[in-house]
Amino acid sequence: RINGQRLWDSLMELARIGATPKGGVCRLALGDLDRQGRDLVTSWGRAAGLTVTVDRIGNVFMRRPGRNGALPPVMAGSHIDTQPTGGKFDGNYGVLAALEVVRTLDDHGIQTEAPIEVAFWTNEEGSRFVPVMMGSGVFAGAFTLEHAYAAKDAEGRTVKEELARIGYIGEQVPGEHPIGAYFEAHIEQGPVLEDAGVTIGVVHGVLGIRWFDCTVTGMEAHAGPTPMELRKDALQVATRLMQEVVASALRHGPHGRGTVGMVQVHPNSRNVIPGQVRFSIDLRNASDELVDRQASEVKALAERLSAESGLPIHIEQVSSYPAQQFDRECVQAVANAAARLGYSHMAAVSGAGHDAVYAARLAPTGMIFIPCKDGISHNEIEDAKPEHLEAGCNVLLQVMLDRAGA
Amino acid sequence: RINGQRLWDSLMELARIGATPKGGVCRLALGDLDRQGRDLVTSWGRAAGLTVTVDRIGNVFMRRPGRNGALPPVMAGSHIDTQPTGGKFDGNYGVLAALEVVRTLDDHGIQTEAPIEVAFWTNEEGSRFVPVMMGSGVFAGAFTLEHAYAAKDAEGRTVKEELARIGYIGEQVPGEHPIGAYFEAHIEQGPVLEDAGVTIGVVHGVLGIRWFDCTVTGMEAHAGPTPMELRKDALQVATRLMQEVVASALRHGPHGRGTVGMVQVHPNSRNVIPGQVRFSIDLRNASDELVDRQASEVKALAERLSAESGLPIHIEQVSSYPAQQFDRECVQAVANAAARLGYSHMAAVSGAGHDAVYAARLAPTGMIFIPCKDGISHNEIEDAKPEHLEAGCNVLLQVMLDRAGA
Ligand SMILES: NC(=O)NCCC(=O)O
Ligand SMILES: NC(=O)NCCC(=O)O
Repeated sequence: RINGQRLWDSLMELARIGATPKGGVCRLALGDLDRQGRDLVTSWGRAAGLTVTVDRIGNVFMRRPGRNGALPPVMAGSHIDTQPTGGKFDGNYGVLAALEVVRTLDDHGIQTEAPIEVAFWTNEEGSRFVPVMMGSGVFAGAFTLEHAYAAKDAEGRTVKEELARIGYIGEQVPGEHPIGAYFEAHIEQGPVLEDAGVTIGVVHGVLGIRWFDCTVTGMEAHAGPTPMELRKDALQVATRLMQEVVASALRHGPHGRGTVGMVQVHPNSRNVIPGQVRFSIDLRNASDELVDRQASEVKALAERLSAESGLPIHIEQVSSYPAQQFDRECVQAVANAAARLGYSHMAAVSGAGHDAVYAARLAPTGMIFIPCKDGISHNEIEDAKPEHLEAGCNVLLQVMLDRAGA
Repeated sequence: RINGQRLWDSLMELARIGATPKGGVCRLALGDLDRQGRDLVTSWGRAAGLTVTVDRIGNVFMRRPGRNGALPPVMAGSHIDTQPTGGKFDGNYGVLAALEVVRTLDDHGIQTEAPIEVAFWTNEEGSRFVPVMMGSGVFAGAFTLEHAYAAKDAEGRTVKEELARIGYIGEQVPGEHPIGAYFEAHIEQGPVLEDAGVTIGVVHGVLGIRWFDCTVTGMEAHAGPTPMELRKDALQVATRLMQEVVASALRHGPHGRGTVGMVQVHPNSRNVIPGQVRFSIDLRNASDELVDRQASEVKALAERLSAESGLPIHIEQVSSYPAQQFDRECVQAVANAAARLGYSHMAAVSGAGHDAVYAARLAPTGMIFIPCKDGISHNEIEDAKPEHLEAGCNVLLQVMLDRAGA
């Protein structure tokens, strides 16, 4: 059993770096605070005798040797960068739970057959630099190191400059680092476990995600003198599409998701008919086929509305993350461990992308979810219960021990 | 007949003050450019022998004596402040057309029985300081001088400070200035005249206007892990109301108008379900009763949606301008003058508020509309044809002469 208090204390200590007045954390990828966070976690790793390796995209691996150094490591981790209004647990929990597993093995003098590694991946959040899940994405070959290096923040600083500046541009070629299996413990970031009163989510896979930008172009005109029948009101057309994004998700099974999160109206003045509306579309589902069907329905309505109204509608895909099933054995191992430890558990699906999605392309992978308060995440009020954090970490300890061989 | 070239040249000269690269004008109320514009117009007035009076809210009256100094003046005017991306004609046309009437009377050595006055009112646009139609509103007693003085721009500067700074805080008490009749020539700011191929709009009145702010409060949550049935998506509820604003206007006759011009989504992030949406509602119609019915329908749907969804919806009225019928004799005089001069004309209603709305509370009032290109206004590409500008000014000359007595 792991030490829940020690895990909690480490989480709270790391959360001090970038702490916000409302109890959250703002520690954007590759800023000074990210460096401080990285320095603290690696100092804890070194104190536990781990060997630290950094690759060229700044992913960090901290290794505890196994009896058989030829075996690829059993790895666990997540990320320590946060959203601008982020919480203490998103990502950080997965990294510090992995460290707590190592500390527990040390407490009991347990040596494993395969090495154990604690990993944290660069810029999972994508708040400061896009794409999201950058470090694990480069590691898995989803996009190139050069592409990631060139990404710029709002001030025009590149990932490469910032990695160099904070001293986390390593020698190792991303991906040239074998993994035997990968586990990631994470808060659910949704309300399902809490609603069901269940402690452990056995994650079977991650939903497929497609992101689009949609632009409806009308003609701005004065709200008073322009009769209704002579208007080209971009917002009136856009709102019908925004509703279809949700309606279509509801027609496509329990895992269908449709969200319009971002809207920009031009010129955004009280007495001017909107001349242009841009908005984001986020579609998700359990299979890529289902996501594609949602996208087709939204696009079909866009064509119909454009023909009816005469207003051009442009829909452009900006990102796509295929649905990912996790390894059957890893999933079963999580379920077995939860049962053995006496924790209530249920099958779960991850609606959000995680570094585990990319890891799953390279090695057998599993995820462990625990409840978070009101399902809220990406928010300073994000919260999780110490007993849930401890339970998830105990499951992680079990699956890593099983996999690495005691 | 007025001198169309002189009118055009004056419009173009005034438009140089605050000219924008795209051919428009940015001359915000009470800024340095507004002072330059005021100085130019009053210098033209003085050159024509007019006596200039400024009142405490900066309204400017330029008087040409009549044979009978005891008669209240026949006044014409508008405003010379512009939108941030304004055009050359909105407001400026009404002021310079009135000045052109004076110049034409001088050319022909015509003396009138009643005095003639050229007026321009402070801050009609309301872009820098709210409320809109500030100078004429204080003049008509719609709100107090103190209320107007206290209005602040985005940098925190008050109307009173800025009036004093540019030297246009006069002695006269606003409203203590008799008016015999008021006429305002203006571009239509809508597409109806151009669509109909008609030169002169005989304005019967101004639509009633109600402005509301609406806030729908949901709960922000991650777009991935949050199942559809557990969401409180503020945007999905808001978009239904936005559509009702338009649908209700369409159900209430030819003059019904409904516009959502401004939308703010919080936190406005691609993968976050909107937790709050604020938007503006602009309702207009030919009678206050019809506007109120539109408002009732929107509010009724808001209550139903709030009950269905559990999301609080708050609708707050921020402004109200009653519908205003213009004086029957003044309206008829405009129609007669257009007919006499051989211009095509049609009955029109003003969908936009104008200084004439407030003037109509104090004196018999009429308005003359001319077409503007594509009905576009509040835009740097605002444009009007010299022959239309000339025609409207000729109508203005006739009605002023008729009223003042030659
Ligand atoms: N975990 C997480 O927030 N990932 C970001 C990408 C997504 O929206 O799923
Ligand atoms: N003419 C004009 O734009 N007035 C502003 C108030 C309105 O929206 O009608």
